[in-house]
Amino acid sequence: MARRHETILTLGSLAEQLGAELIGPRDLAIRQVATLEEAGPDDISFLASRQYRPLLARTRAGAVILGGVDRDATQLPRLVSRHPYALFARVSALLNPGDAIQPGVHPSAVVDPAARVADSSTIGPNAVIGKDAEIGERTVVGPGCVIGCGAAIGDDTLLHANVTVYHDCVVGDRCIVHSGVVIGGDGFGMAEEHGRWIKVPQIGRAIIGDDVEIGANTTIDRGTLGDTIVGNGVKLDNQIQIAHNVLIGEHTAVAACAGFAGSSRIGSRCRIGGAAMIHGHLEICDGVTVAAGTMVRRSIAEPGVYDGFFPALPHRKWMRNLARFNHLDDLAQRVQELEARLAALDGQAASGSPEVSVGGLDDS
Amino acid sequence: MARRHETILTLGSLAEQLGAELIGPRDLAIRQVATLEEAGPDDISFLASRQYRPLLARTRAGAVILGGVDRDATQLPRLVSRHPYALFARVSALLNPGDAIQPGVHPSAVVDPAARVADSSTIGPNAVIGKDAEIGERTVVGPGCVIGCGAAIGDDTLLHANVTVYHDCVVGDRCIVHSGVVIGGDGFGMAEEHGRWIKVPQIGRAIIGDDVEIGANTTIDRGTLGDTIVGNGVKLDNQIQIAHNVLIGEHTAVAACAGFAGSSRIGSRCRIGGAAMIHGHLEICDGVTVAAGTMVRRSIAEPGVYDGFFPALPHRKWMRNLARFNHLDDLAQRVQELEARLAALDGQAASGSPEVSVGGLDDS
Amino acid sequence: MARRHETILTLGSLAEQLGAELIGPRDLAIRQVATLEEAGPDDISFLASRQYRPLLARTRAGAVILGGVDRDATQLPRLVSRHPYALFARVSALLNPGDAIQPGVHPSAVVDPAARVADSSTIGPNAVIGKDAEIGERTVVGPGCVIGCGAAIGDDTLLHANVTVYHDCVVGDRCIVHSGVVIGGDGFGMAEEHGRWIKVPQIGRAIIGDDVEIGANTTIDRGTLGDTIVGNGVKLDNQIQIAHNVLIGEHTAVAACAGFAGSSRIGSRCRIGGAAMIHGHLEICDGVTVAAGTMVRRSIAEPGVYDGFFPALPHRKWMRNLARFNHLDDLAQRVQELEARLAALDGQAASGSPEVSVGGLDDS
Repeated sequence: MARRHETILTLGSLAEQLGAELIGPRDLAIRQVATLEEAGPDDISFLASRQYRPLLARTRAGAVILGGVDRDATQLPRLVSRHPYALFARVSALLNPGDAIQPGVHPSAVVDPAARVADSSTIGPNAVIGKDAEIGERTVVGPGCVIGCGAAIGDDTLLHANVTVYHDCVVGDRCIVHSGVVIGGDGFGMAEEHGRWIKVPQIGRAIIGDDVEIGANTTIDRGTLGDTIVGNGVKLDNQIQIAHNVLIGEHTAVAACAGFAGSSRIGSRCRIGGAAMIHGHLEICDGVTVAAGTMVRRSIAEPGVYDGFFPALPHRKWMRNLARFNHLDDLAQRVQELEARLAALDGQAASGSPEVSVGGLDDS
Repeated sequence: MARRHETILTLGSLAEQLGAELIGPRDLAIRQVATLEEAGPDDISFLASRQYRPLLARTRAGAVILGGVDRDATQLPRLVSRHPYALFARVSALLNPGDAIQPGVHPSAVVDPAARVADSSTIGPNAVIGKDAEIGERTVVGPGCVIGCGAAIGDDTLLHANVTVYHDCVVGDRCIVHSGVVIGGDGFGMAEEHGRWIKVPQIGRAIIGDDVEIGANTTIDRGTLGDTIVGNGVKLDNQIQIAHNVLIGEHTAVAACAGFAGSSRIGSRCRIGGAAMIHGHLEICDGVTVAAGTMVRRSIAEPGVYDGFFPALPHRKWMRNLARFNHLDDLAQRVQELEARLAALDGQAASGSPEVSVGGLDDS
Repeated sequence: MARRHETILTLGSLAEQLGAELIGPRDLAIRQVATLEEAGPDDISFLASRQYRPLLARTRAGAVILGGVDRDATQLPRLVSRHPYALFARVSALLNPGDAIQPGVHPSAVVDPAARVADSSTIGPNAVIGKDAEIGERTVVGPGCVIGCGAAIGDDTLLHANVTVYHDCVVGDRCIVHSGVVIGGDGFGMAEEHGRWIKVPQIGRAIIGDDVEIGANTTIDRGTLGDTIVGNGVKLDNQIQIAHNVLIGEHTAVAACAGFAGSSRIGSRCRIGGAAMIHGHLEICDGVTVAAGTMVRRSIAEPGVYDGFFPALPHRKWMRNLARFNHLDDLAQRVQELEARLAALDGQAASGSPEVSVGGLDDS
């Protein structure tokens, strides 16, 4: 673990700053956060789930963070909160404030004279800021980033190294954008003509709201005519693909390797699992959870959990089932036939088997 | 929408330049393309599909682009074409010509003295051009791009910021390559020896044809011995992976997040859906459509549409079906048994159930 | 094929240097490796698999590399080895040594005065080396790479262009890291509080062992508290996603587009297929092969092959089976009912159908 930042805070000051209940000595010095297993007497740990209670009994942590139900599960000095994991996140942020970054433009950066760069911002080595681009207050543009002409980056935003923002795109305030992210590349728009593809100019923008985090190598295309929009508070993991004219609603979280095809509209506070794929031109309402590896082909109008993936099986078992699947329609017809023959045999005309008609080609 | 380019054209000049039929006033001024819903009197819109006819009735657009069958579906000024979406693409390109780019090498770029860079080309800030590399006429190498030794980029090609082209690779004329693309990285070639992996040098190249577009963060590996080839007119979306010695035939289009394993050979004018995965050492003939999220494990010799993905279901329903799938072989055997027992019962020896033998372990 | 490196070796010196058995003239000059089909009299080729024996009969290669069982399958000059493909890899490496690279820091690179950069290393144009970073002996940092503060790169490692290594991360000796790779970005850690996401600081590191190769645009996140670890000898293809606190065991190979969710622990000498997805917080033992496109949701404690993907079918056939799958639970219930009715009919109470109880909602 990297421990370059030596910040020491007392348990009392943590409780006060974060509005948590303190049980134990106010002046206990805390240097770092750590897991229950690895924490030492200078560390504060946390109980994220009841299943880790046995670890709580054995931990060498100096203090722990707990939810209300677990407040008496230990005699250790502790902070109690209704949202213990969120409290842990805040404690960690206080103990790991990051290096102070010097404002200013590195001499190797190339900033167009017509760019508007806040004096309090930091432009890293070899970064390139295009004509008419705007960089907000206290924003950091990392080494090797390229900000296109007319693009606007808000205040207090951090672009890590080697991020690319295309012309005219917008990134809000307090965002964190990781390396290799590409914002505003052309959407995949083509018209077919005589077996060849004519490029449809992508003249919209990509607009990223406030408080958005974007993981490494994620790509967010600009819109064809209107804009691609990533709402406030959205959290995107690594290697996500967001096509042109997609809308991601506020506070939705998306795990790595997921993809959104063109013009899909995702609601607020959704959770999209890793490697999930959302087809284009559909709508997912607020509060939907899509499981990892699941493909969504139709609009979803009801909140809830949606699945569509097969977990691994041992090879032989999988191959057997797969072979059966590949003849599943035959199998269903054989069942239908059996039902008919049995009905004839026992003289009951189709009684008890109204599902015989079920086998149509719908897929819902 | 970004409207930095103020180009105004008359409907008549559009019709003339693009060979479209004009119905309406020649001198109507058109400033921009827009959707039927968002267009205003200065805009030209288009009817892409009959399902949008109701929007056509309500649009405030100054003019519209239509197919022949819809020519009388409105009284608005209009351009009529057999390929209305392609016409729209061309109109948009005329109205959005892009900024004029100054030729020349930016002082911060690092160009090897032995590179051959056309005077009409543009080398952006902090770009790096290696020894013996060639950059063609009017080609733009964006900020932060790295062109390896001996690589060749054709004429009128646009490399957006932060593209990497490895040594000796070739990119054709009139290509568009988006940020984060890596062309010519080593293929994944290793030989096993005593439980360790020995690297197989990747001494082939990646060759990209003319008129190819490559989306952000797509990777195209160089060949092991021969070359990896992306044919003329191929269109690749974002985050596609093309392994060593793959061949992508001309005018094939590939949606985002698809992958091609080593030595796969894809025909011309194929359409590969998003997140589709093509196994290695197989061949797909011309004119094949592979649906999104589909895995191709064997060669395909017949044009047509191939599928292989499961759309999401509500969690409970999916889990029920999944549980059944995991016992599908059992289920099939039970059906077989039922058939046998029923045959015995009604005295018919296996009549009507020749499919009993179907349940082998093939998976075709 | 790129043939800029003109290295000529005799068959005898190859045999000697690599400890292979030589059958044929010691002084035969070999310039390059090539496939059986493409090899000429200056080339050495190899027989990787018996299925290519017909090509062996027709090859124009000057010499070939064979396994012991094939030693008499040709009269051509030949090198014989127990691991012919590994021998081929080594021969190719000798014939294609790569350009000699001049040590030194390019004047356009930005190296922090507090970085420790070995004199024998090469820092490419526009690379950025942060404060307290270390670059080992003979290591090459390609153009446009950004090495964060306190990061350490070992000896004899090659970072191709535009690689990003975040602060405090570690890359071992003799690694090859391809363009666009991001090592040490923040893991996707967030705590929910009142419907919003609070960032959990990611204070661990990413640690890459020795002899690791990492393909283009792969991302490896740093740990939340402890470290993310990629073991010695691991080989990673392109566009792989490795989340925070993952452990990849030694000499495991992972094909392109695979993903590992947080805190998954993968054994040694595993083989993970392309686009495979490994869920978080699970363990895979040594020696497991996960097929391409397979999702692993539970720990695997037995070595072997695990599958979970459906190969493409022609559209109609797939849609029929898919429709049946979507009613698979119904179908299973109908079979159960048939069994019961048949049992009643022929007077046997459930004899022969103990699997009736199998249809629970487990999915193992």
